[in-house]
Amino acid sequence: MIKYPSGMKKSVNNSSIKQTTSNRGLGLEKDINATNQYYLDLDIALIHKKPTPIQVVDVRYPNRSKAEITRAYYTKPSTTDYNGIYRNRAIDFEAKQTNSETSFVLALIHDHQIVHLQKVIKHGGIAFVIIRFSKFDETYYVEAQKIIDIYYGVKRSIPYRWFQENAHLIPFSLTPPIHYLKVVDLIYFEGE
Amino acid sequence: MIKYPSGMKKSVNNSSIKQTTSNRGLGLEKDINATNQYYLDLDIALIHKKPTPIQVVDVRYPNRSKAEITRAYYTKPSTTDYNGIYRNRAIDFEAKQTNSETSFVLALIHDHQIVHLQKVIKHGGIAFVIIRFSKFDETYYVEAQKIIDIYYGVKRSIPYRWFQENAHLIPFSLTPPIHYLKVVDLIYFEGE
Repeated sequence: MIKYPSGMKKSVNNSSIKQTTSNRGLGLEKDINATNQYYLDLDIALIHKKPTPIQVVDVRYPNRSKAEITRAYYTKPSTTDYNGIYRNRAIDFEAKQTNSETSFVLALIHDHQIVHLQKVIKHGGIAFVIIRFSKFDETYYVEAQKIIDIYYGVKRSIPYRWFQENAHLIPFSLTPPIHYLKVVDLIYFEGE
Repeated sequence: MIKYPSGMKKSVNNSSIKQTTSNRGLGLEKDINATNQYYLDLDIALIHKKPTPIQVVDVRYPNRSKAEITRAYYTKPSTTDYNGIYRNRAIDFEAKQTNSETSFVLALIHDHQIVHLQKVIKHGGIAFVIIRFSKFDETYYVEAQKIIDIYYGVKRSIPYRWFQENAHLIPFSLTPPIHYLKVVDLIYFEGE
């Protein structure tokens, strides 16, 4: 039995009712950012979201001190969105959200992100993917190797049921919203 | 004698004695990126430069598929520029270039970067700063703790001579241009 910080158990119980994430697309990102801030503030871990990669095309200088970007485009990230350090280990993960009630479409993860996650494992980091099924208000921690194996197989999506059996449901609370390091503790540090 | 890509030597010489933060340090950045690509290609390490943080203010959608950013600004990075994994260890560093022949001005490193480097050490990562003295074509690996200690002292700059005595000169070659992991090997893996 894993012990959670006070308040967490309660909210886990409450969650059976319905956890609504206010802003669909950004909900998961906000939750993870708030969680990372919590880890940072309490000196638990050092995990950051990388800035969104943007290709700058035109810049003007209205005055000497400030550059104004007047044309730019979002570009595909070459790595995952989040990384950092926890208990001497490198942490690296991607986060995805789906509105589907039946499956997670693998196309939501880019080829180069899969390649990157494989390299993280190879070099000794802890790699995973956080996947939220918004409709169920459920957020899963999936070990990267499991996703990688499926990715290189024939299936183009992973059924919802698979997550219930093969992934770890991340406990939800207010602080932190998505306590994913609890799962890291469980898998890599034997629940210490 | 080190060979630079055409044009570079010239621009280094033309630059004034003043250290300006505007369009400087691309030589070092290019060298580090090429080095990281080398490490990646040879599966030696997994180290990336983080995207430059940009605050997007206005976006327009000329067509459904593409967003065009029409107004945005560069923002201060909250962490260092580079991180990744090497031999099971988290790697995190910042890189700075100076045209001074006498000292490195500490103001080139932001407060929050110092705080970040301290946290990297605390959580078990390998933290350092790469500092290039352009005029001497010398690039030094400095253990982050040494910079941190000086940063919180009374001095506002570090004399060039200090680097010769307290930092590690990074060997320069064509592939990779800045083989900084050689120094990591020396310090953390006893030169294996």
